[in-house]
Amino acid sequence: MSELTESVTRMMREFEKLPGIGKKSAERITYHLLKVDKEEAVALAQSVIAVKENVRYCRDCFNLAEEELCDICKDSRRNHAQICVVEQPRDLIALEQTGMYHGLYHVLLGRLAPLENVKPEHLTIAALLKRIQIGGIEEIVMATNPTVEGDATAHYIINQLKQQDSPATVPIKITRLARGITSGSDLQFANKEMLADALSERQSFH
Amino acid sequence: MSELTESVTRMMREFEKLPGIGKKSAERITYHLLKVDKEEAVALAQSVIAVKENVRYCRDCFNLAEEELCDICKDSRRNHAQICVVEQPRDLIALEQTGMYHGLYHVLLGRLAPLENVKPEHLTIAALLKRIQIGGIEEIVMATNPTVEGDATAHYIINQLKQQDSPATVPIKITRLARGITSGSDLQFANKEMLADALSERQSFH
Repeated sequence: MSELTESVTRMMREFEKLPGIGKKSAERITYHLLKVDKEEAVALAQSVIAVKENVRYCRDCFNLAEEELCDICKDSRRNHAQICVVEQPRDLIALEQTGMYHGLYHVLLGRLAPLENVKPEHLTIAALLKRIQIGGIEEIVMATNPTVEGDATAHYIINQLKQQDSPATVPIKITRLARGITSGSDLQFANKEMLADALSERQSFH
Repeated sequence: MSELTESVTRMMREFEKLPGIGKKSAERITYHLLKVDKEEAVALAQSVIAVKENVRYCRDCFNLAEEELCDICKDSRRNHAQICVVEQPRDLIALEQTGMYHGLYHVLLGRLAPLENVKPEHLTIAALLKRIQIGGIEEIVMATNPTVEGDATAHYIINQLKQQDSPATVPIKITRLARGITSGSDLQFANKEMLADALSERQSFH
């Protein structure tokens, strides 16, 4: 596409880098952005810059935050004795949409995946263990994805917890989401009702 | 998605406005942009801003340009006595890729579409007629899309030309692309060979 101007070619290449955007989609988006008002295109650009400038991970739970703590960790009405462990912020969002969980979260930012070389130190597991060691936690709800890797990650965390012999960790109840959710599926795409069932039927981890 | 931070929600909404980007695609792009380096995300944003700041339509032919005239209109090696009329810059690009046309272009920025309320005054037809009236043009190559609307647009322009009685317009040859291209298809997706045939076999407009 050497016939496009330099700026246009560069923009199209940038869009092609995004997941799910091929050459033809990037072209469609390019022609769309050429056509729209400058304000509309700049709003898109500014929104990306704002995210990279304002968004970070919550100091405590690694949820998305615009301040040191995320809105959930800052909320004193939530049960600070419960931690629900999820893989990604999107899983947290799915659970929040059920309106059935009122504790805190811990976002692992991934799951153990030996084949992809994702090891415990790449996740926020150490920070989770530290939160628990500090004390005051009564229940850990394991809500990793119902996949081989998600289950393995949950088991790894449980084993680490059992090895901790801090007095604070003694009376912790460990639960996991009820398997109302279909094994092998992806948590972020489950519907609200299914997730609501899974939350209310959550079982003791064995 | 009220559980996402404000900036993230805003960014996701901006991506959802793009053609072909639904809710799920916007989410995937959002998580991707949250994950990548700030530099990479900002490069995308800056490329959009650069396009809106630098790109305009060529004063003469309405091709994309970063200066008053586009690279084609500025090129003295091209035949300034030929004008190839296309609907969109992407059609111009497709024709340029054949390497078989060495004249100038005129980009209509659309085609007549009564059902969508696209009328002659929404296109760059008046500017085309003016270019021709100034004189020095020997051939007009009609290269609107081989569709009902593209053909109607071409016929409208021919009729307008015939009504002009400026002395400069007298010896103009009007041709159209040979129908090597399949009627009802879309010019931007035709392959180079097909377009090359269509250019070399172009016929007198009747």
